[in-house]
Amino acid sequence: MTANGQIGIVPRDFIEACYGRPVRRRPIWVMRQAGRYQASYRAVRERHSFEEVCSTPELACQVTLQPVREFDLDAAILFSDILVVFPPMGLPVHFADGGPKITEPIRRADQISRLARLDPERGVGFVLAAIRQIRAALPPSIPLIGFSGAPFTLACYAIEGTTSRDFTVARRFFHEEPRAAEQLMTHFTNGVADYLAAQIAAGADAVQLFDSWGGLLSAEDYRVLVVPHLQTILDRIRKPGVPVLLYAGGTAHLLQPLADVPFDVVSVDWRTRLRTAATMCREATAIQGNLDPVALFAPPEEIARRARAIISEMDTTDKGHIFNLGHGILPDTPEENLRTLVAAVHGVPPK
Amino acid sequence: MTANGQIGIVPRDFIEACYGRPVRRRPIWVMRQAGRYQASYRAVRERHSFEEVCSTPELACQVTLQPVREFDLDAAILFSDILVVFPPMGLPVHFADGGPKITEPIRRADQISRLARLDPERGVGFVLAAIRQIRAALPPSIPLIGFSGAPFTLACYAIEGTTSRDFTVARRFFHEEPRAAEQLMTHFTNGVADYLAAQIAAGADAVQLFDSWGGLLSAEDYRVLVVPHLQTILDRIRKPGVPVLLYAGGTAHLLQPLADVPFDVVSVDWRTRLRTAATMCREATAIQGNLDPVALFAPPEEIARRARAIISEMDTTDKGHIFNLGHGILPDTPEENLRTLVAAVHGVPPK
Repeated sequence: MTANGQIGIVPRDFIEACYGRPVRRRPIWVMRQAGRYQASYRAVRERHSFEEVCSTPELACQVTLQPVREFDLDAAILFSDILVVFPPMGLPVHFADGGPKITEPIRRADQISRLARLDPERGVGFVLAAIRQIRAALPPSIPLIGFSGAPFTLACYAIEGTTSRDFTVARRFFHEEPRAAEQLMTHFTNGVADYLAAQIAAGADAVQLFDSWGGLLSAEDYRVLVVPHLQTILDRIRKPGVPVLLYAGGTAHLLQPLADVPFDVVSVDWRTRLRTAATMCREATAIQGNLDPVALFAPPEEIARRARAIISEMDTTDKGHIFNLGHGILPDTPEENLRTLVAAVHGVPPK
Repeated sequence: MTANGQIGIVPRDFIEACYGRPVRRRPIWVMRQAGRYQASYRAVRERHSFEEVCSTPELACQVTLQPVREFDLDAAILFSDILVVFPPMGLPVHFADGGPKITEPIRRADQISRLARLDPERGVGFVLAAIRQIRAALPPSIPLIGFSGAPFTLACYAIEGTTSRDFTVARRFFHEEPRAAEQLMTHFTNGVADYLAAQIAAGADAVQLFDSWGGLLSAEDYRVLVVPHLQTILDRIRKPGVPVLLYAGGTAHLLQPLADVPFDVVSVDWRTRLRTAATMCREATAIQGNLDPVALFAPPEEIARRARAIISEMDTTDKGHIFNLGHGILPDTPEENLRTLVAAVHGVPPK
């Protein structure tokens, strides 16, 4: 029996798969599983803004639990946003319909030295409170995943000021102001490490770093500019039994630099073949992914066929596999189609 | 001496490199080389809209020639837009500042059968006229590259109706209406083949297919949905001495399916290592690329260092190499920095 009592005695396939250990059934959760595709989420959002849901522990807890109750998912993920750490660092954010807007984006080196260090309990205490509530409300068999944006992705938003296809303003800053960019990366690295450690202390059973825009860098730039920071974060948050996952979008070319960092799980999108990811990652690294979210608009038999194809590709390897989408589930996805996917994944006996 | 007289006797390094033959100096051109980063282009655009420049042969000719005169580039590329073929097919387009808007995007199968087949001379005669003027005005040593959007990228715009980060509406259509999507791909394949053949007949010395959004598909989907159409286009436009180039963005994962199609040149962005591209492409295929456009904001010595790194990577292979950016040159790029890049590329002796 582990220190946290009953949680230690129930099988938690998601955690087992993160460590490449045998599972009762192949675990599945989906990115943005609490979201607009759910009638129950839309009902909450009719009465509360996105920011309210993020910053009110009771609401964040409610929407985090909804998909776990409505679908047969194997993990819960904290409902929050990677940019909630910005305001307490001195970067006010407005969450608009077209994406977040940072009031004063970082464009000059002197703005960086004025950023505040994140004190998680004071700055984002509402997230830690939500984690405590969710963990208390979740069945012991369902792990709770905490998360944070990775430093490069946070830097992309802080500099660009909004979302973007290519983040050229942000990426250009790394070339024009390389020292300032490195200072910003260090600032975010410290903040992310403290934030994730606090999430783990509050009860998160696993944490996922989202480097959503890492794939915009070349492999060499990623190795030089990003990888050392990811290593620092890992060193500072590692705790036995709490897996650390990395999601990076558009990553086929980043698998090589990423192999230097001992993440427990690397999560790839549909553009990277799972077999390629499995071959290129470290031996102990499990793989998460990778159905294209648009495939959830196909007929049920096609959804199931694609799920089985992904599973059989992973089954040619000896790695742990957590089924997921390659990106967040789309707002218009029929709920029934997610149910079809979950049943298809659970229907294939684990290796 | 070839049929076209004097053109045959002057060395044209761009064409030679496309076929992997020896060159006097390593050729370089850059995508969107006629564009807003140039004072001379902005001067034209102060008096004429983007649509006017595209549709007026004299203006298209003028802006096509400007970068060739101002920089020591080894090829000219027709100034046009991949969507000029849409209106004559029955898909009106408005070119707004935020990108093109298709008035009535394709969302239902019955819209596809009503599309008109493209008659290049009647529908986009202004492009063919521009090509004739440009070819007559260019020095014989400078080849003229014509171009077209590839069928999948055209389908992305036709369905989505505008530009997008993920083209989820369009990609979803391929799952919801697979037969209609295939019909649309066939329609565009016919149009593109006729259009490129007409460009070659009008005097284009090479043609490039832009599959800018192909990288949004998984390798398997690209192989099934796109590759057969690319093969059809190649079969229909092949002409001795006129190389066919393919640019596909975010393609590290597409090199395997692309190896089935005998393009003369595959152009990759900065996210694919040239050595990887060279290894995975067919033996006879030359490689084009791949400096990250944001690197043109670095100091001159860093621009030159990155150019030399790309060149030395290609020099470990025995393939033809055309230097280019990994994507279009950015509007704010200092002209001087492009000059630095061109000099750096030409400064390294060819293999």
